[in-house]
Amino acid sequence: MLKLSEQARATPVVEWNAGTPRSVQDEVAIEEPIEIRVGGTSVSVTMRTPGDDFELAAGFLFTERIVSGRDDIASLDYGNGPDKRPSANVVDVTLRAGKKVDLARLQRHFYAASSCGVCGKASICAVRVHGIRRPAEDLRISPEMLAELPDILRSRQAVFDRTGGLHAAALFDGSGAMLDVREDVGRHNAVDKIIGRALLDRRLPLSHQILFVSGRGAFEIVQKALVAGVPIVASVSAPSSLAVELAREYGLTLIGFIRGHRFVVYSGNERLVADGER
Amino acid sequence: MLKLSEQARATPVVEWNAGTPRSVQDEVAIEEPIEIRVGGTSVSVTMRTPGDDFELAAGFLFTERIVSGRDDIASLDYGNGPDKRPSANVVDVTLRAGKKVDLARLQRHFYAASSCGVCGKASICAVRVHGIRRPAEDLRISPEMLAELPDILRSRQAVFDRTGGLHAAALFDGSGAMLDVREDVGRHNAVDKIIGRALLDRRLPLSHQILFVSGRGAFEIVQKALVAGVPIVASVSAPSSLAVELAREYGLTLIGFIRGHRFVVYSGNERLVADGER
Repeated sequence: MLKLSEQARATPVVEWNAGTPRSVQDEVAIEEPIEIRVGGTSVSVTMRTPGDDFELAAGFLFTERIVSGRDDIASLDYGNGPDKRPSANVVDVTLRAGKKVDLARLQRHFYAASSCGVCGKASICAVRVHGIRRPAEDLRISPEMLAELPDILRSRQAVFDRTGGLHAAALFDGSGAMLDVREDVGRHNAVDKIIGRALLDRRLPLSHQILFVSGRGAFEIVQKALVAGVPIVASVSAPSSLAVELAREYGLTLIGFIRGHRFVVYSGNERLVADGER
Repeated sequence: MLKLSEQARATPVVEWNAGTPRSVQDEVAIEEPIEIRVGGTSVSVTMRTPGDDFELAAGFLFTERIVSGRDDIASLDYGNGPDKRPSANVVDVTLRAGKKVDLARLQRHFYAASSCGVCGKASICAVRVHGIRRPAEDLRISPEMLAELPDILRSRQAVFDRTGGLHAAALFDGSGAMLDVREDVGRHNAVDKIIGRALLDRRLPLSHQILFVSGRGAFEIVQKALVAGVPIVASVSAPSSLAVELAREYGLTLIGFIRGHRFVVYSGNERLVADGER
């Protein structure tokens, strides 16, 4: 039986307080590399917190547009590590018979003169996945509800509580109820895990859900949300310029700096409706 | 003349406060992809905040062990983008004549059965660069000085002040004086930029300096510090399990959770000396 890694681990440390050292045990978040293979070919090695590895693999392949739906994936298993024995850090993905994949697409992170010549926006073109669409437009949320999301997420971050060292991604419905949450040392991984779970459960597109992330609203987070059909991305932190550009181009609502009852809407303000106007 | 990008940009946003929206201008940190080419071959595309791009390229190639010193780099220039004109998002690196490079080393992020069989620690082996050494052991610092670093860094984060959305990396000497600082949307980039500047100035190894980072003490940050000869890595946040393992294996002092006069030493506590014992 394959031994799976834990998400946090106790380790001896020295805690200094006002100039005085003390030896104590502390918990640290586990960070280990995971290799994702498709049909035996290695397509990614990324540092992640163990757990939900099949979700991570499914979400990564979906948000990178290697697979376009649940049925493209025939099976997910742990594969052999360098010692030729099953490893908890290798996921073997088998695609359905006949599924054609363009693994070269994962090389898109190199400028492709042909595609970038089309839209003229080299900065976005160079890194964008193909085939993303505008999310559904009918979801409306209240500003009062948004203010609650950080505290709700925080109360559900089990591993963060032990280690103080994990990012989180959560899905909320339009009324502010949390539907799912994942934690990881990498914020992209937390998003891939939550989208991967939804893919495996055939719950995509997430047309009426809010993706709330603990870290910055970076370009790749907005892109992953768009691939999954999420109309609203919110965080307590700042978005980047490219995230704002992408959100505006596709009509995604991008919200940052949620602090108490204040927040900033960078794109898609029409999905915010004050309680008096609903 | 090539127009270089700025690091932050004003954009119209809607600020909500206690249920009331207001249209204002806000600044967001610029995030754009940069492509690094070595001898015409694309070796990396990463999202970064523009500025110090030559430092970023030099630091990346050094910490990935593609180049082993300043003299390996003959020149750094902006290269042509997809429109065949010079782009501020492409850096062309020319190596010295006769320098042999193993660009396949950048593929090390895939399990290599041969190397991983040696040490048996597959999880670290899979992602570790070759040729890192133990840093010098003679630097000693005081806990009182450490407590000051977060405020000093914060006071020097110019772009963070405008956007609230950047990571920072800074070098301090043993007395707590800040020597250099770099900001970037990516924390790895901030570290590469600061190490790249030191490489170009022939200031490596950084045997008597402290690398202070605004984000987590992740594995790759510790690894980059070791490549540059840095003996102490500190942050206000949590390290990961793999960062702690690597720091302990190489005798690097790894400090986290600096909050007021409290902090946690995960490795190398011998470099901390209380003021009364100095």
